[in-house]
Amino acid sequence: MHFRGILRILGLLICLFSITLLPPAAIALIYEDGGGVAFMLAFAVSIFIGFMVWYPNRSERSDLKARDGFLLTVLFWTVLGAVGVLPFLFTEEVPLSITDAAFESFSGLTTTGATILTGIEHLPHSVLYYRQQLQWLGGMGIIVLAVAILPMLGIGGMQLYRAEIPGPLKDAKMTPRIADTAKHLWYIYVALTVACAVAYKIAGMNWFDAVSHSFSTIAVGGFSTYDASMGYFGSSTINIICVVFLLLSSLNFAVHYAAITGRTLRSYFVDPEVRAFLLIQLALLFIVFATVLTHKIFADTGTAFNQALFQSVSISTTAGFATTDFSAWPLFLPILLIFASFIGGCASSTAGGLKVVRVVLLYRQGMRELHRLVHPAGVFSVKLGDRVLPPRIVEAVWGFFAAYALVFVVIMLGLLATGLDDITAFSATAACLNNLGPGLGEVAANYESIPDAAKWLLIIAMLFGRLEVFTILVLLTPTFWRS
Amino acid sequence: MHFRGILRILGLLICLFSITLLPPAAIALIYEDGGGVAFMLAFAVSIFIGFMVWYPNRSERSDLKARDGFLLTVLFWTVLGAVGVLPFLFTEEVPLSITDAAFESFSGLTTTGATILTGIEHLPHSVLYYRQQLQWLGGMGIIVLAVAILPMLGIGGMQLYRAEIPGPLKDAKMTPRIADTAKHLWYIYVALTVACAVAYKIAGMNWFDAVSHSFSTIAVGGFSTYDASMGYFGSSTINIICVVFLLLSSLNFAVHYAAITGRTLRSYFVDPEVRAFLLIQLALLFIVFATVLTHKIFADTGTAFNQALFQSVSISTTAGFATTDFSAWPLFLPILLIFASFIGGCASSTAGGLKVVRVVLLYRQGMRELHRLVHPAGVFSVKLGDRVLPPRIVEAVWGFFAAYALVFVVIMLGLLATGLDDITAFSATAACLNNLGPGLGEVAANYESIPDAAKWLLIIAMLFGRLEVFTILVLLTPTFWRS
Ligand SMILES: [K+]
Ligand SMILES: [K+]
Repeated sequence: MHFRGILRILGLLICLFSITLLPPAAIALIYEDGGGVAFMLAFAVSIFIGFMVWYPNRSERSDLKARDGFLLTVLFWTVLGAVGVLPFLFTEEVPLSITDAAFESFSGLTTTGATILTGIEHLPHSVLYYRQQLQWLGGMGIIVLAVAILPMLGIGGMQLYRAEIPGPLKDAKMTPRIADTAKHLWYIYVALTVACAVAYKIAGMNWFDAVSHSFSTIAVGGFSTYDASMGYFGSSTINIICVVFLLLSSLNFAVHYAAITGRTLRSYFVDPEVRAFLLIQLALLFIVFATVLTHKIFADTGTAFNQALFQSVSISTTAGFATTDFSAWPLFLPILLIFASFIGGCASSTAGGLKVVRVVLLYRQGMRELHRLVHPAGVFSVKLGDRVLPPRIVEAVWGFFAAYALVFVVIMLGLLATGLDDITAFSATAACLNNLGPGLGEVAANYESIPDAAKWLLIIAMLFGRLEVFTILVLLTPTFWRS
Repeated sequence: MHFRGILRILGLLICLFSITLLPPAAIALIYEDGGGVAFMLAFAVSIFIGFMVWYPNRSERSDLKARDGFLLTVLFWTVLGAVGVLPFLFTEEVPLSITDAAFESFSGLTTTGATILTGIEHLPHSVLYYRQQLQWLGGMGIIVLAVAILPMLGIGGMQLYRAEIPGPLKDAKMTPRIADTAKHLWYIYVALTVACAVAYKIAGMNWFDAVSHSFSTIAVGGFSTYDASMGYFGSSTINIICVVFLLLSSLNFAVHYAAITGRTLRSYFVDPEVRAFLLIQLALLFIVFATVLTHKIFADTGTAFNQALFQSVSISTTAGFATTDFSAWPLFLPILLIFASFIGGCASSTAGGLKVVRVVLLYRQGMRELHRLVHPAGVFSVKLGDRVLPPRIVEAVWGFFAAYALVFVVIMLGLLATGLDDITAFSATAACLNNLGPGLGEVAANYESIPDAAKWLLIIAMLFGRLEVFTILVLLTPTFWRS
């Protein structure tokens, strides 16, 4: 393990992160909301920590290997999540316990979007902006993670995407080219954010809300500057804009890149994951719309369609924005959508869940088993598009699925042991593991009322989900630390 | 497909089954409970049906192939389940709708043990006996299924056990030797039943109850002749006897056979599945006992231990006997035990669930993924004991796990759509798919109050669970029917 090399990069990352505390300070200045000191203090503390971590290791130049990548990835999210707590602790207007501050920080950075805050609209603008920015930065982190790091580490079959990464990354070394790779996709990320913000503004939001919500939309995060979330605006146009950008952000960013560089929409239509994703979305929309109509939940069909579309996209892509109290819909619907959030968005997107491509592979493999039962002597391969997949990738996907299920069961049982009721425990675990956000029952609106132990368990769930389970599990094996 | 050959065997099986309606008729005579006419009528109708199915195909002698095996297996359980409805419909003392009668019949035959009856102790003795016998016959069916048919069909990795079957069954033909194979294990099954009945009698039951409960114990079925189930007797000795025989019945019957023919207990200790099973049971006992003590649910430690042991074994082996209203225990415990029922008992036992061996294989495969992540160039195999497993078996187990999860989700959503609440839908699906029996919420005691649509969905769940999912799924593919 190249501990010093890892610390050098980690120190730099903390310094970079501390710089992101300056925009909220500027917001505090503009809105004179009194939050400036807290953010300047947090900036000073975190840049000092970053410097102290970086300085003793500044001349370390050894190339990091794949194994270092696991440790660096986990440290990246846990350390930045911890540093992200500081502004909450320093802001006197928002008196949060350390647990609550940590919950909010990790929920932001992992783009989960679960919150322990109420009366959000009364928070200082600087804090509001900071929460949204946390999600946006988290989204940027996920893109590097999904596009550069997971394929290299081979987590849950993601070596599938090694060939698709622009640049020679196949040498299993953590080279500076990761930054190059990510840069191209970040351009797309930023462009989507700008387009989304402008669209929100045109549809009637003020600039502050437009930028804030574009941050949490493109990150598929789900934080809002209002308790009522998107429902505050009561605008079906804004709902449609949100849906469009959520769908775009849930697609594989490498496919966006291919479409842009090739100047053709063909990239989308030939991608088996994109097709499966859109098919799932259509099926969900159909079921939700039909059920909402049957139960006459809305007065007119137009509203019913708009709400059905919004909720099914928002929950199933793991965004978690709300326009209506969908937890009061016939229980079948919320639970259907929470099950759908286990599928989530495409790989290499900012959405959560198992990822569509993995579900496609599980389905293909299941069909292969059926064919094998009928024709025991036949030879059947698992294909994705035209590619025949090596057994190793398929096995990795199975392993991922089982590990995901195991983590789900353990965390849900843990929550029950803290005294939560079953619907709360089930939905909270799903909502945090899938980086979805809102749950049902006691956590339908926010997570304030649950015990501290439950909150920490859910922070772990968010990290397991965001880091695709195995990144953390690997660190718990003795093999990893040996030699 | 050899339809005529399948019908010939099916006809014979129906005739055989109709003969099992005579003992309840005899019971009716002994206890003068008025149920005799119903059973004689059911006997006449079913032997007539069996004859009509068998007679036109009686001279068909073609060897059945593996593919015929799928159809025959599914027909065996669905047709016998349907014929099993007759006595309930003909008994005037028990006025059941067709749905309720079907639920009770399939629940019995699949050894699920979920019931729609209340005031069970007031039913005629003939009906009481018949329900228990249905479970016992179901258990016999499972042994043929698990020991002879599933390995041959290769369902969910069960080709693993092909080598262990006594007799030359590897030629993928359905030969009469299946009966030979099964016969040896049926001797064990009958011996266990007799031993269990005698033990219950000595511990204080009357002969009727002793035999009745030994039937549902060895079948890991869970039907009782009292609403209060085993709790009626209020005897910790009876509880212990039940636990011992449930554990024995949850072990692989082929391992029992090896132990008996080899006259050594070594067979048990070297079997990796048996060891994992006992380890799981110990862990569950520890957690349940500790939690029950902490929450001071029972007045003295002895009772607490007895109840913790009984409930954890009864639920996790998928028996589903009750001694106390465990659904009123802290929610963590019932849900832990319901999750444990997904693991269930050993393969080739009468218990339900995924089966311990599959969970062991999933665990091994998960560990292999972790090792592969740390050492990408390493070659790791999945072992069971000393055997290195071919990838095909491991893949089949993964497929089984995913299909099981899919069926669970679809049926649970279906139940929610009929209007059930979440804890009822979750626990009822688990209880029927795992062939466990009692659930939580509305179905903690019995299934009477849920809608008919929900009952039919749960009958399907019982069949999916008992027939190991793929046997039914295969019949739904076009490939199966082609050529
Ligand atoms: K989210
Ligand atoms: K049972």
